[in-house]
Amino acid sequence: MAAKWIWYPDEFEVYHAWVLHTRREQYGAHYPVMWTMPLPYPQVEFSKSFHAEEDFSFRVRHTGRGFVRLDGSHPMPLDKTVHCPAGDHSVRVCIEAAGSLTSIFIDSPYLQTDGSFFVLRGSEKGDPLQSAHCHPALGAEDSPLRFPFAYRDLTPVSTEEVEDGILYDFGEETFGPVSLFGVAHPVGVFYGESREEALAGENECCVWEWVTEDKELAPRAFRFLYVRGVAQVRAREEYLDLQKKGYFRTEDARVEEVYRVCARTFHLCSREFFLDGIKRDRWVWSGDVRQSLLINAYLFGDPDIARRSILCLLPKDKVFSHVNTITDYTMYLPVMLWEHYMLHNDAEFVCRVWERLCLLMDFLHRRLDPETGFLVERAGDWVFIDWADFDMGGPLAAEQILLWHAWGAMARLAAVAGQRGEVFQERQERLKAKILSHFMDGEKGVFVDTYTTRRRHISRHAHIFAILFDFVDDATKAHFYKNVLKNDEVPPITTPYFKLYELEALCQMGDLVSAQDLIESYWGKMLDMGATTMWEQFDPAVPVPEAYAMYGGAYQKSLCHAWSAGPIYFLGRYAMGVSPTSPGWETYRVEPCLGKYKEFEGAVPTPRGNIYVTCREGEITVLSPISGGTLSVGGKEIAIPMGLPTTAKL
Amino acid sequence: MAAKWIWYPDEFEVYHAWVLHTRREQYGAHYPVMWTMPLPYPQVEFSKSFHAEEDFSFRVRHTGRGFVRLDGSHPMPLDKTVHCPAGDHSVRVCIEAAGSLTSIFIDSPYLQTDGSFFVLRGSEKGDPLQSAHCHPALGAEDSPLRFPFAYRDLTPVSTEEVEDGILYDFGEETFGPVSLFGVAHPVGVFYGESREEALAGENECCVWEWVTEDKELAPRAFRFLYVRGVAQVRAREEYLDLQKKGYFRTEDARVEEVYRVCARTFHLCSREFFLDGIKRDRWVWSGDVRQSLLINAYLFGDPDIARRSILCLLPKDKVFSHVNTITDYTMYLPVMLWEHYMLHNDAEFVCRVWERLCLLMDFLHRRLDPETGFLVERAGDWVFIDWADFDMGGPLAAEQILLWHAWGAMARLAAVAGQRGEVFQERQERLKAKILSHFMDGEKGVFVDTYTTRRRHISRHAHIFAILFDFVDDATKAHFYKNVLKNDEVPPITTPYFKLYELEALCQMGDLVSAQDLIESYWGKMLDMGATTMWEQFDPAVPVPEAYAMYGGAYQKSLCHAWSAGPIYFLGRYAMGVSPTSPGWETYRVEPCLGKYKEFEGAVPTPRGNIYVTCREGEITVLSPISGGTLSVGGKEIAIPMGLPTTAKL
Repeated sequence: MAAKWIWYPDEFEVYHAWVLHTRREQYGAHYPVMWTMPLPYPQVEFSKSFHAEEDFSFRVRHTGRGFVRLDGSHPMPLDKTVHCPAGDHSVRVCIEAAGSLTSIFIDSPYLQTDGSFFVLRGSEKGDPLQSAHCHPALGAEDSPLRFPFAYRDLTPVSTEEVEDGILYDFGEETFGPVSLFGVAHPVGVFYGESREEALAGENECCVWEWVTEDKELAPRAFRFLYVRGVAQVRAREEYLDLQKKGYFRTEDARVEEVYRVCARTFHLCSREFFLDGIKRDRWVWSGDVRQSLLINAYLFGDPDIARRSILCLLPKDKVFSHVNTITDYTMYLPVMLWEHYMLHNDAEFVCRVWERLCLLMDFLHRRLDPETGFLVERAGDWVFIDWADFDMGGPLAAEQILLWHAWGAMARLAAVAGQRGEVFQERQERLKAKILSHFMDGEKGVFVDTYTTRRRHISRHAHIFAILFDFVDDATKAHFYKNVLKNDEVPPITTPYFKLYELEALCQMGDLVSAQDLIESYWGKMLDMGATTMWEQFDPAVPVPEAYAMYGGAYQKSLCHAWSAGPIYFLGRYAMGVSPTSPGWETYRVEPCLGKYKEFEGAVPTPRGNIYVTCREGEITVLSPISGGTLSVGGKEIAIPMGLPTTAKL
Repeated sequence: MAAKWIWYPDEFEVYHAWVLHTRREQYGAHYPVMWTMPLPYPQVEFSKSFHAEEDFSFRVRHTGRGFVRLDGSHPMPLDKTVHCPAGDHSVRVCIEAAGSLTSIFIDSPYLQTDGSFFVLRGSEKGDPLQSAHCHPALGAEDSPLRFPFAYRDLTPVSTEEVEDGILYDFGEETFGPVSLFGVAHPVGVFYGESREEALAGENECCVWEWVTEDKELAPRAFRFLYVRGVAQVRAREEYLDLQKKGYFRTEDARVEEVYRVCARTFHLCSREFFLDGIKRDRWVWSGDVRQSLLINAYLFGDPDIARRSILCLLPKDKVFSHVNTITDYTMYLPVMLWEHYMLHNDAEFVCRVWERLCLLMDFLHRRLDPETGFLVERAGDWVFIDWADFDMGGPLAAEQILLWHAWGAMARLAAVAGQRGEVFQERQERLKAKILSHFMDGEKGVFVDTYTTRRRHISRHAHIFAILFDFVDDATKAHFYKNVLKNDEVPPITTPYFKLYELEALCQMGDLVSAQDLIESYWGKMLDMGATTMWEQFDPAVPVPEAYAMYGGAYQKSLCHAWSAGPIYFLGRYAMGVSPTSPGWETYRVEPCLGKYKEFEGAVPTPRGNIYVTCREGEITVLSPISGGTLSVGGKEIAIPMGLPTTAKL
């Protein structure tokens, strides 16, 4: 076993989450996140008992400061060679680092840092934990303070002299560090997701920096670089080395192009964690992460970034507010943890974070209305769901249905973690009865936004959740589909964020075509407007550069936003129709649907390899590396054998 | 009101406690504290609504990074001038600092930082607190990251060429930064509390540093500096600008000299917080702090260092272990907070720290034996009381009596903080009954160390606590005095730490002479051995340099240790006999005792000035600036008028 950099469990994620969330900049201001982020524990003791066959020596590499003791010696300086005679020994390394990560690396014949080290936080009482490392593990020359990204050189597709500098166009949106050489006088670097942004000057261009000496600048998002002044420029892309496993092809090249651009968008936003977008916030928002986890399942199938992102949203020792300050974003935590468990059968992770999850859900529970159990608006909480004109005069139906779903996830997760889950189940049952008696409009048979105002305002959101979370029976779902989802009198969903959920609900009701139509009318049109990655929001009626405006800034719209990569998910989940039906794909289901396409082929990643699905000329073929599959087609259920193609009539 | 540097309440103390506790060095190793210390909250928002009569502008000085918003503007960079028109405004400054202190300073015509700003920790919910500052407040040019010490230049009393360098003797123990000038080749600076230590080389001298360029070294303790290599040296003393208000003089010049050296010792150890000593640990130990608070009451009477030191010992959001990992050190917290309240009537402080104190005492309570309520040894806890040969086979009597005292303090503090204290009172009553039934030896009428082993081993400690904390009635106290304290068969107290408590118990039993004798035989003898400050421990039978050895190192004994300044306390408390009898000296008592002295005069500080006490030629005179005093002399109780000398026959 090779030696690895090791740390206290989950602290690598805590550290990099802090760095990420205090890295935002805008119009020259340093713009740290507004919600409270935990820091790594500042004192950690690493220890191990070991046996040496012969005399040897070792050195401790480390982040932070501290000392090493061998067999209860006086503290010895780190970075000096420790001589150790043959025999039985114990080693203790104590490290402190205020606001940074405590970690060590030892490689020697009889002592290597790996999972066999124990860790304690300072003087904490109780059994020590086993140390942690990341995947792939970091080697001697790596620093755990630097996230292990991959890099590739970028070449501009065009350069253009503009006023007092040069405008570089790299052809498509990217993210990475820019280096300047030969700087003699101040040089301004203006980052543009669009040409217009790069040239808009300090007051409107979101991100820029003036440089007075040769240096590598912090990695940032750009397609265009406007370099004012004289310098040579080297740009690199910084990316996470993820493998795109899922794919989808159909007869329409446009769909394939949308899929490709969605995949590039999603890859750019998949970094230390799942980011919302790469230019502006670059923060980890729970609502966005939950959608990214769905998309990840059908593109990368990577459990590590999923775990990191969930960790990044969980509180540590104290809860200061809802996740991202948003009530519904707290509720997505058990939901996404359960979905992660279904994909990866990751009971170890569920057990590890159970206490932190309970800390959060206890906070949520304390802020509910004690009588109804409803989520109500408390001072300082952001009741969000979506940017929509809800009747905000009382508790929202959509919030309560999500809460019901969250309590259900808590009950199931408790069982996985070996904890008692009855309390969550009871809450869930009581809540369901209350929701139905308070929010259901007896006349129309649909949910009102809220019951306190008697305005009987109806939105799509509660009904979408009710369909997706199986909150109501099939007949009621059909009623909602007809009377809400397909009812033009109900205000439309206007954000791509919630559009994903609406499309999913439509797909679940057998209406894949609506989603397929949008690939043309929405995503396809974005490509027509010159998008090289998918935008945060899009209205085909607004031309560029006006389309780049958002949040009161001419260029504040993110042009590379994870939640706009949804087609990857609904093509994988509802066209190919592949999904796990028990944890870790022990059993799974393939229920393909062509919709308006004539044919398609694609793949969906599982922890044990890709499942390939081809629909062509009235036939479906499934090839799967795993057992437990059921092909559902034309009302029939067919067992899918492992490793052999299964073909059926469509 | 002048502008001040402001921060989230109590975070200045948290920050400087962290810095202090990660500053220890020994034999070239960086030696951070082993118990878990909290860090400052890394995200703080400062806000205020204000009115400007006319247009003006301001700048935000800050530690950490962040932005300023005026009336909901986009985030604006700090360090740039903000222009503000006449009218009503609100300003918000968001700062992040990982592992450091977030603080701001604004001075402008219509906006100044002071207590009128509000603070929130990141996205926390609930009412914001008022910002805090220190006393005296820090001005524009100060940095809150640098503790505001005073400095004075030091001149060596002798210099001596030794081998490859020069040995400087500064005549007495001191603490401060040393600067080197003209460094061309590596220069070694070896710090010695004794001449022998300075010359002992890297393996035995505790603190040294090799320097390769001109610099100011970190402040450290020394009397001797051995500078190896060629450099000019400038040494400064770094000290807290405290005023020695208390004093004590008698006919014996030796007593006055002991008092003077104790006062210097105590002043050197009174810095950001009350330190144990200035060379080795330089940490804040609860047992030591409690004694320092007693001494402070009779020398500086400074409430600020008292508050800082108590804050430094309290947990913040999570308790990882007992205070300093020691069970009894946890119990001193309510005890010392109550004593601080009695001295300063500081209800505001008690309210402020109540929650943190409860966090700690809840931790303690969870680790008690649920059946008896006794403090028992749990894995990882250090049951200390004193370095003594206790019968450690079961729960210790001394721990339980201290626990009883701590529950009593909690009950009284709860009342001060406006909280319910019945639970503490109940615990106290139940515990007393259990202690008496389990630990009292029926035959001898004294406490056994523990009851589980049936060894009936007896120590002084439980009896000293029982006398000091009024755990038993006067008759039992007298029995303990005769059969334990004055019984040579009971093992003697060997540490100066607990000696203070033994002397106090003797004084309380009217035996001031025993304490006075020790001033000659112990403290006086230390001066004979060349001490310029009082040592951590002293045995008149061991000569120097052997006397400098401790903890397995030839020079690890601290030669300037706060707990050895006890004479200041017992001369003030029991010779002058001055003490408060209600919070903040609303009422107080003067009960002087000459003991073996013929005469004395002295002063005891109170928040409203010094009380002067003179005993001479059979008469006592008290002069006090405050009302509420009672002179107790010769069985009589005499009211002490404010501002007028009161004289009575002794």
